[in-house]
Amino acid sequence: MNIYNSENMQKIVVIGGGTGSYTLLRGLKKYETELTAIVSMMDSGGSTGRLRDEFGFLPPGDVRRCLLALSPDTSSLRNLFEYRFKKGMGLNGHSLGNLFLTALRDITGNEAKAIEEASKLLGIKGKVLPVTTNHCHLGAILENKQVVVGETNIDIPRHDAELKIKKLFLAPKPRAYKGAVKAILEADKIVIGPGDLYTSVLPNILVSGMKQAIAKSKAKKIYVCNIMTKRGETTNYKASDFVREIEKYLGEKVINYVICNNKKPAKNLLAKYKKEQADFVEPDLKNTKKLRVVKTNLLDDIHLARHDPDKLAKTIIELK
Amino acid sequence: MNIYNSENMQKIVVIGGGTGSYTLLRGLKKYETELTAIVSMMDSGGSTGRLRDEFGFLPPGDVRRCLLALSPDTSSLRNLFEYRFKKGMGLNGHSLGNLFLTALRDITGNEAKAIEEASKLLGIKGKVLPVTTNHCHLGAILENKQVVVGETNIDIPRHDAELKIKKLFLAPKPRAYKGAVKAILEADKIVIGPGDLYTSVLPNILVSGMKQAIAKSKAKKIYVCNIMTKRGETTNYKASDFVREIEKYLGEKVINYVICNNKKPAKNLLAKYKKEQADFVEPDLKNTKKLRVVKTNLLDDIHLARHDPDKLAKTIIELK
Repeated sequence: MNIYNSENMQKIVVIGGGTGSYTLLRGLKKYETELTAIVSMMDSGGSTGRLRDEFGFLPPGDVRRCLLALSPDTSSLRNLFEYRFKKGMGLNGHSLGNLFLTALRDITGNEAKAIEEASKLLGIKGKVLPVTTNHCHLGAILENKQVVVGETNIDIPRHDAELKIKKLFLAPKPRAYKGAVKAILEADKIVIGPGDLYTSVLPNILVSGMKQAIAKSKAKKIYVCNIMTKRGETTNYKASDFVREIEKYLGEKVINYVICNNKKPAKNLLAKYKKEQADFVEPDLKNTKKLRVVKTNLLDDIHLARHDPDKLAKTIIELK
Repeated sequence: MNIYNSENMQKIVVIGGGTGSYTLLRGLKKYETELTAIVSMMDSGGSTGRLRDEFGFLPPGDVRRCLLALSPDTSSLRNLFEYRFKKGMGLNGHSLGNLFLTALRDITGNEAKAIEEASKLLGIKGKVLPVTTNHCHLGAILENKQVVVGETNIDIPRHDAELKIKKLFLAPKPRAYKGAVKAILEADKIVIGPGDLYTSVLPNILVSGMKQAIAKSKAKKIYVCNIMTKRGETTNYKASDFVREIEKYLGEKVINYVICNNKKPAKNLLAKYKKEQADFVEPDLKNTKKLRVVKTNLLDDIHLARHDPDKLAKTIIELK
């Protein structure tokens, strides 16, 4: 499957978090590349949120998912890392991988070392780096000027989900992890997304130093647009809306490539999504001098309208 | 340090649980032997007790300690396995190793496989086997006929600690794990103890099939007597009392060797133990035709009046 030899091995940096990064990394790890995942550290829900609140460490959830994506299927620790308790007072709902990372953070004294140690234990291919090691919370100002604080409150809206997000912010403002900046500056390709626009992708760009590093890097800058919209975040968004929002925070003319899926999921699948107020993202973009648009079938429509890891990875690897 | 070559490598089976087995195994693992730890599964206190109650699996605590004793100091998973949460609702007090074993039990479907999988992950030297895979509780009948049920209730007495234990029992009566029986039958040396007599050592012998297997085995049968007595269990016991109790459950003439420490701990250390109603165990035994008594300095008196792992292991290895 390798189309590059070790001498011209591509240095690929993936920026995101959540399911989108998981999918992309699972595809990319099959190629011989120098792969780095830069991961959002603003998650505040579920097992991660509880650990974050109780231990005062950075949230482990997105890191765990990226480590899993990059760990070999043969790793016996993988099953344990993935395990979630379904019983037990106080244990119920906790992911063992999250507890692992929390313990490693306590033992090693810092997040970056904890992730490095977990990477070794799992024998992962590539690197996982936190976008920041500073504590912060994600906030959103809605179109009615209402302020919502906490990633999970934006992700699962308890406010009127029809209200658009006007502005995202991080408080207190964190600084980019220097390892992440270094990886960006040395990359051949920087892939932003796919993933929840306001809760997984953009939080990375809001971190001080990230926008500058991405702009400065000589890498090809690629945005992978989502396949479906998301209630309370990107209702009715087309591909052009996603790109507009990315450019609002990243600056114009920074992104060189947009990868869009152009294959509509099956009708029965779309109907299921419709119930959750999620629709197909129309790939309404056209090539310009500044922005090359790659439209192709990226759909893994067996169960869910999600990116197929292999199709997506191939498109990125072959981009020239 | 090896005094045996691989051809006549000693097959040593250690029967116990708790700190005693941990100490002994740490010493024995430095020698080239075929080492098997058979571990009591009746623990009901602390993190272990909570997991046992909430998940309905066998208690992981003693297994965890033996795995730790046999894992290489260089294993990076070791630190995690040893880690104990000191915060977190429902997490506080839990050992990550116990959570590990509980998750592995859930994933693999049985205790023996879970221990095997954990042994591989930790890269342990030797084998750890459960004495039984049947659920049971430890009970004691006191001299006033009061019945106390639950290992932790015997271990940390809430009853009158002056009352002697007249009889120990397991309910419901469990069967010995066949792997444990096999190891006993094939052993060159069987080492019983050291460890809390009624809560770590004897519970193993009460398991159906254990007494018979030990009697049948052609191995040298060695009992390692404790250095100090324990409040509520062995108050005022001398070495002869320990042996009498062992023989009460194991049968007479089964034990061939008794190893006793004959070095009294320092006075200030003894004074500290005295506050917890624990005294030095007098090595009051004499050699007989049936029972050879080895009295030697086994004391690690730097911090606690405990067995020195190396002194104890050397004594056992060199026993002929």
